[in-house]
Amino acid sequence: MTTKYLPPPWAFEFHGHQCPFMPIGYRMGCLSLEKLELEREKDHGFFVIAELGEGHPQTCMMDGIQVATGATFGKLLIAKTFYGKLAATFYHPQKGAVRLSLKPDAVDEMGKFEFIAVRKKGVEPSRIPVALSEEIIRWVYEQTDESLFAVELKPDYQFKPVKGSFNKTKCATCGEYVFDRYLRMKEGKPVCIPCSGY
Amino acid sequence: MTTKYLPPPWAFEFHGHQCPFMPIGYRMGCLSLEKLELEREKDHGFFVIAELGEGHPQTCMMDGIQVATGATFGKLLIAKTFYGKLAATFYHPQKGAVRLSLKPDAVDEMGKFEFIAVRKKGVEPSRIPVALSEEIIRWVYEQTDESLFAVELKPDYQFKPVKGSFNKTKCATCGEYVFDRYLRMKEGKPVCIPCSGY
Repeated sequence: MTTKYLPPPWAFEFHGHQCPFMPIGYRMGCLSLEKLELEREKDHGFFVIAELGEGHPQTCMMDGIQVATGATFGKLLIAKTFYGKLAATFYHPQKGAVRLSLKPDAVDEMGKFEFIAVRKKGVEPSRIPVALSEEIIRWVYEQTDESLFAVELKPDYQFKPVKGSFNKTKCATCGEYVFDRYLRMKEGKPVCIPCSGY
Repeated sequence: MTTKYLPPPWAFEFHGHQCPFMPIGYRMGCLSLEKLELEREKDHGFFVIAELGEGHPQTCMMDGIQVATGATFGKLLIAKTFYGKLAATFYHPQKGAVRLSLKPDAVDEMGKFEFIAVRKKGVEPSRIPVALSEEIIRWVYEQTDESLFAVELKPDYQFKPVKGSFNKTKCATCGEYVFDRYLRMKEGKPVCIPCSGY
């Protein structure tokens, strides 16, 4: 069995190296679209609340999620909760929400691969022999959705995107444009946060 | 004149729509690599501190930056300062840092295009006639680096990436894995932040 959700070649180019977590995130993203009956997001209408944080590995799954869903960081559609968990909630205002998490048993299985052992020694993914990255990625492709992911529909999930505005003003000190919600007043003049000193 | 830094076709596929700010970010990213004499980042060694925020437009430039530099959100290499400015600092521990900002005059010039007028009316980019998006993207491609960007080398820039750890523990309540820095103690047991209730 091989999953039908294989990342396109450019997903690896975007990500920069071969690792198992980008493809796992790609599968999570594709599954979220399948469960919510959505297509990849072109604009600004689909949100990913990722339960990952900083200073830990396996966050690469968020690159796969960006690639699969179109909920990109640049479009302000993906944000971290800083929980340090391998899970994400996917939300669409009309279609509702679904949470996908990587099952602990799947995490344990992955921990048995040489790729992970070498990573823990501090070797960067692009320096790990291709045979080792291909071995674990192939394993990811061959697992069923059920063995990898817990899927939980969240019909009552609440999420309110920040209200946007195009208004901007030049900082009275540095002259650069600042979107108005980030202007600060200093001696009666609008300035940017760095120029404000507070 | 046309810039040599044109995003690959998959950059638009990743981003999801045709707009001028993804290509602008792509150029910023390429220029940062040029100035710091670096290649696209494969792993985890190059950092982007983007001065954008939330609830404002033109953040799409961060998708172009991810594509150009390999400093992706999934690899924890790009973060926002929440300043609401059209600028970013690019940092490499050995090569130093450079700040690129979009010049206010360039922002004003872009504001004259029909594409921006239609966007301000709330029309999503994928719904804007292709002729209008192509017109403003072509304009971006035809501008010199000097007319678009202020470039500032920052030899004294300080940035300390968060120290990472692979250690993880199962939450005593939900059973999901949590990376240790995010564990909380509740009634003597390690739990994840959502299960902790605080």
